[in-house]
Amino acid sequence: MTSVDMSGWSCPAPLRDYPRIVLGHGGGGVLSAELVEHLFLPAFAPRSNAGAALADAAVLEVAGARLAFTTDSYVVRPLFFPGGSIGELAVHGTVNDLACRGAWPVALSSGFILEEGLELAVLDRVARAMGAAAAACGVRLVTGDTKVVEHGRADGLYVNTSGIGVVPPGVDVRPERARPGDRILLSGPIGEHGVAVLSVREGLEFGGDLRSDTAPLHGLVAAMLAASADGVHALRDPTRGGVATALCELAAGAGIGVEFTESAVAVPPAVDAACGFLGLDPLQVANEGRLVAFVADADTDAVLAAMRAHPAGADTAVIGTVTADHPGLVVARTAFGATRIVDRPLGDNLPRIC
Amino acid sequence: MTSVDMSGWSCPAPLRDYPRIVLGHGGGGVLSAELVEHLFLPAFAPRSNAGAALADAAVLEVAGARLAFTTDSYVVRPLFFPGGSIGELAVHGTVNDLACRGAWPVALSSGFILEEGLELAVLDRVARAMGAAAAACGVRLVTGDTKVVEHGRADGLYVNTSGIGVVPPGVDVRPERARPGDRILLSGPIGEHGVAVLSVREGLEFGGDLRSDTAPLHGLVAAMLAASADGVHALRDPTRGGVATALCELAAGAGIGVEFTESAVAVPPAVDAACGFLGLDPLQVANEGRLVAFVADADTDAVLAAMRAHPAGADTAVIGTVTADHPGLVVARTAFGATRIVDRPLGDNLPRIC
Repeated sequence: MTSVDMSGWSCPAPLRDYPRIVLGHGGGGVLSAELVEHLFLPAFAPRSNAGAALADAAVLEVAGARLAFTTDSYVVRPLFFPGGSIGELAVHGTVNDLACRGAWPVALSSGFILEEGLELAVLDRVARAMGAAAAACGVRLVTGDTKVVEHGRADGLYVNTSGIGVVPPGVDVRPERARPGDRILLSGPIGEHGVAVLSVREGLEFGGDLRSDTAPLHGLVAAMLAASADGVHALRDPTRGGVATALCELAAGAGIGVEFTESAVAVPPAVDAACGFLGLDPLQVANEGRLVAFVADADTDAVLAAMRAHPAGADTAVIGTVTADHPGLVVARTAFGATRIVDRPLGDNLPRIC
Repeated sequence: MTSVDMSGWSCPAPLRDYPRIVLGHGGGGVLSAELVEHLFLPAFAPRSNAGAALADAAVLEVAGARLAFTTDSYVVRPLFFPGGSIGELAVHGTVNDLACRGAWPVALSSGFILEEGLELAVLDRVARAMGAAAAACGVRLVTGDTKVVEHGRADGLYVNTSGIGVVPPGVDVRPERARPGDRILLSGPIGEHGVAVLSVREGLEFGGDLRSDTAPLHGLVAAMLAASADGVHALRDPTRGGVATALCELAAGAGIGVEFTESAVAVPPAVDAACGFLGLDPLQVANEGRLVAFVADADTDAVLAAMRAHPAGADTAVIGTVTADHPGLVVARTAFGATRIVDRPLGDNLPRIC
């Protein structure tokens, strides 16, 4: 790609095993985290601490307002799948990253990279899905950009959405606020997005009517904050890398221990069957309409009731607690009463899932 | 790419000649504008007016502040070129879109799409260029995302940067404020970015020491606004499609006529030679560190002096005026005293230039 002399460059130690990008660097697991910590953070913010990379969105004081700001590129394959398309995903994913900082989404951008030869009908369908999803979320797509690359230099289309949200006064939702004693709530059954995408991609039939769970979560979060603005400590939407990655990142980033009961995590039978067939752990499969909440023990009943009263959280369950024991570790209690340590995937079990 | 049934879809009339994406849809010219007007705007904002798409950035009232918000994806090929790289471009381009609304840039996001197999040394060099450019601009890279696609599904790397800026009180810079009598100022010589990129891409030597003009413009804009906050009516950075496209879009969008003197537009000899060789019009070649300003006649001397006193505007020239004659048209006065109508390119003379 370039004749630039890179001979003087040496890979930071944790990246040394992979001197070239592998799919796993985009998987949201250990390799993704290493890239952020050892390459992007030193390049972008040499003097900041690494914790800044932990949250789903940045929160900034701008002209007297507290704004949340986030970005995500979407490269899901195929573009259309049961329950949605890259269009809904691009709106919901960015809205949800804002919601996970307690912010109310206000405006989105869209940046398309199109492959020469893409049918306009496909682009139109994706754009309409984005427009409809944004309207349903009450958020505006206010600015955009389109680039085109030669045939064979993309895969139909990729789209980036960035988003701005407003953090209401009194709200302070961030990973570092999770603390021992917090209860851990999961807003519904897991794995549907990842398995739905995989089913069309690989031409597999897993039975049942499996659809992506893609959905916006800002309404649910607003209901939770209305129940207890102070008691909702930390939120995470378990997308790439699934619930396992969300819990592990929280545990490592906040220096807390996490314990949860495996049987409390609802896995739909079709997801369970597909994961068994494919050798996947449902805990590591991507969701796009679920959240994990770390809530003060005293506020759990109120927040749980608010979540169950909201359509996006009707099946919320309390799955575990935060402990001062084993900081940084996530431990699952199995159906047999034993415990096992849960880890993030190294890389990418399901590439291009979002 | 997909088995989805599109048989019911019919192309909007102005798009019908190109039912598939061609490189020209990303060129910033007529085809790009048609895509925005007839596909994206109806999908994203069915009831808004098309003028919203005209500006380089959106300006929103958010929690009492006036924010500018913009996005751009960068797909330049090659990644490194004389005078810069995709990293500087990704920072300067987005900073400049904010500046062209009179906003002071505050925060940027970065969304990478990486091709499997990319050398980490290349990514590191790009990231460091972004970090250094952002630091030099006084703007923070606060949030990011990384996706990886299979080898052959991208071209090394693409990056999206979105940006937030604050519009100072009393500042209202937008295309619609350009009006008859305004003077048109151009901040320096044109075409260097496009020709510098092309020279390395095609292995051509155009002589001289031609380098991309990539540079941030927010400091220059702040100096202009300090000279006359109200007199700076409209700004445009002439990137894809060059000065011709910037002028034509302004003329069409604001319903004004533009007249300028060709000889007042400085074209460096190396750019002129390269364009002659390649059959390009320098007016249609991309710049990344220049701006076109529409300034109230009475304020022109003050704004011109402020621009020339700033390093990014030392070579500013008054190139023309806004007229009530021929609204929507751009007319150039040639060296021989004749006039010619200047138009946007249809598509892309120089694909993947930014």
